[in-house]
Amino acid sequence: MPRQALRFSGMSFPQSGAPLAGLTVIDLGRVLAAPFATSTLASLGARVIKVEHPDRGDDSRAFGPHVGGHSVYFASVNCDKESIALDLTCAADRAAFEMLLTHADVLVENFRPGTLARLGYPWERLHASHPRLIYAAVSGFGTTGPLAENPAYDIIAQALSGMMSITGHAGAPPVRVGASIGDLVAGLYLALGIVSAVHRRTATGEGCMIDVAMLDSQVAFLEAAITAHTAAGTDPQQRGTRHPSIAPFQAFECADRWIVLAAGNDHLFHELCAAIGRPEVAAEQRFATNASRLANVEALDAQISATLRTEPAQHWIAALHRAGVPCALIQTVSEMIRMEQVRARNMIIPIDDPQMPGASVPNTPIKMSGFDVATTRRRPPRLDEHGDALRREFGLG
Amino acid sequence: MPRQALRFSGMSFPQSGAPLAGLTVIDLGRVLAAPFATSTLASLGARVIKVEHPDRGDDSRAFGPHVGGHSVYFASVNCDKESIALDLTCAADRAAFEMLLTHADVLVENFRPGTLARLGYPWERLHASHPRLIYAAVSGFGTTGPLAENPAYDIIAQALSGMMSITGHAGAPPVRVGASIGDLVAGLYLALGIVSAVHRRTATGEGCMIDVAMLDSQVAFLEAAITAHTAAGTDPQQRGTRHPSIAPFQAFECADRWIVLAAGNDHLFHELCAAIGRPEVAAEQRFATNASRLANVEALDAQISATLRTEPAQHWIAALHRAGVPCALIQTVSEMIRMEQVRARNMIIPIDDPQMPGASVPNTPIKMSGFDVATTRRRPPRLDEHGDALRREFGLG
Repeated sequence: MPRQALRFSGMSFPQSGAPLAGLTVIDLGRVLAAPFATSTLASLGARVIKVEHPDRGDDSRAFGPHVGGHSVYFASVNCDKESIALDLTCAADRAAFEMLLTHADVLVENFRPGTLARLGYPWERLHASHPRLIYAAVSGFGTTGPLAENPAYDIIAQALSGMMSITGHAGAPPVRVGASIGDLVAGLYLALGIVSAVHRRTATGEGCMIDVAMLDSQVAFLEAAITAHTAAGTDPQQRGTRHPSIAPFQAFECADRWIVLAAGNDHLFHELCAAIGRPEVAAEQRFATNASRLANVEALDAQISATLRTEPAQHWIAALHRAGVPCALIQTVSEMIRMEQVRARNMIIPIDDPQMPGASVPNTPIKMSGFDVATTRRRPPRLDEHGDALRREFGLG
Repeated sequence: MPRQALRFSGMSFPQSGAPLAGLTVIDLGRVLAAPFATSTLASLGARVIKVEHPDRGDDSRAFGPHVGGHSVYFASVNCDKESIALDLTCAADRAAFEMLLTHADVLVENFRPGTLARLGYPWERLHASHPRLIYAAVSGFGTTGPLAENPAYDIIAQALSGMMSITGHAGAPPVRVGASIGDLVAGLYLALGIVSAVHRRTATGEGCMIDVAMLDSQVAFLEAAITAHTAAGTDPQQRGTRHPSIAPFQAFECADRWIVLAAGNDHLFHELCAAIGRPEVAAEQRFATNASRLANVEALDAQISATLRTEPAQHWIAALHRAGVPCALIQTVSEMIRMEQVRARNMIIPIDDPQMPGASVPNTPIKMSGFDVATTRRRPPRLDEHGDALRREFGLG
């Protein structure tokens, strides 16, 4: 494929061809799941107006570390947004909020279910007064079912869903996935639900309510575990870094650090053994097929490990690359940031904030022809930074 | 909020009000990332036509375990799809494929970059002959950059991105997230890119190419790690189950099994200590604030662990629930499947396949008013099962 023909030329904000340009999102979100969803929509061109409480704003503004007085955590999911401070228990601010909604396509929140209704904005009322509005809520357990009103954090969703039960080493203390995938996966499903609802509205003219739960989203991310259990009675296990149905496909320790490799078929297994100078391992009957390698995975692990730990990782990476065996260093975040591939994809871009020099955020991984990739992101808003401008623009009084 | 007002009544396929109804997706995907993306689109109402090689079809049809002769793994991401067998190196089948494209909105694939172009279908040619077609490709590293043509599997993306470096216990062997989030996150971003491109096409009339990389998608899922490193110089660590900025927020071992709990503020910490009969722990100066609890997290862990391991998990779950402290069992997948909440949300639904009795798959976590939730999914297609019907419907000759 003539890949050069598909260029993702870098451009500063505003971007041309953004697929969600023209879409206005009112964001009541705090901390992670909803702000991540709206950050994702912003990176595709939506206008996101963050409505925050006048006292402290989004809770995550208080999360350390702070640089130049501003939270690094908050910055990571609130670039490219505007902020207006409104107290939804105060009449004048309620009027302003309602006026904002008349100009909005989407309202996003991640309060505990029932909170927005108690503030006087149940879905029925929102829908009656703003029939085109899409109301998107993300919560721990969703708006229905016996646990609907229970609080949840990422670790609760990871624990209840079974995700923690299939992550880590058998017999060792449990492991939480290091990123808060309980929130992030739910936020990404919410974003997909929102754009799908916008598409439907083009035909029907009508908005809808979207209800995404962190628990449900983790359940949807268990790969084949649910089907395997219900169809074949297996209960999936913790396997460290090992793949449940391919061997070898795991991490190995070299003289200095760890690598991963994946020999997905017999040919690659032979190449692997030759590349590490152990062709006799590939000739053993007990390692002849993927099925037999899986059945003897501990013995296989011992054979390969004994060799790999004699030389540093880069030695083996070079040898395996020459042999065409997929492999990689287990990198730190700072090593990843320095990768030429990550730079070429423009995946880490600076925030244009002199008060947080050098601070960068991930770019959208959705590269699209006709949509110029951003090369910076607008810094996260200070609390109520755009309040006056928004009041003028929308006549909020 | 009057939650009862928002009902997600169960219905069998076909569903009414599906947001992507009317959208036709041609799916050349194999194994996971692309099939997961199209499975997600199918659960929102898109019609997905799987084009498979006549010899063996999708590689994952061979993945064990098999029930009734059919792969459980394949079933987990290929429900609600049709299958037609076409050999894209054979002239008659190429003509059929091209005819299919004239009726399609989206073409999805996860070949190594360049493969489809070598088969005679570079993006430029697809776009020239089918200007409204959206061409969505997902690969390990994307179509650009020095690693574009390298192979990648889930474990490679998890290792290179830094995701593995922040998951697991410091000093212990590495851990791969038990589900293949390298593929799944990329697939979900691909689905979001596709629906966003469909939305843009409504205005412009023009299709586009979408290019999503597994590595990029993992980078976008590192939460605040990139911003923290670039702004504050921190390199995020492996923390087992601990939260980087809240304590206590982690797993604890009880007499029989593990639980997680999350005391996100001073009030909840006091409630926690009282609920486990250790109010004196909350009175200690070194545990007075979240910052001091974080600084003394090992000592705090020791104090709480000493008590929790004296009684079984259900004892503590009950006590903590009464006190309003968010907590949960670390459940297996089979325990999750039996949860009343999961049933109430209709999150696990059966495949209507007598040859795979009892087999179930996750439902979509996107609940939407006016869109009836499915209560079954159509079983995955046998290879070329819909070939004849599709040839008649689209005049494929």
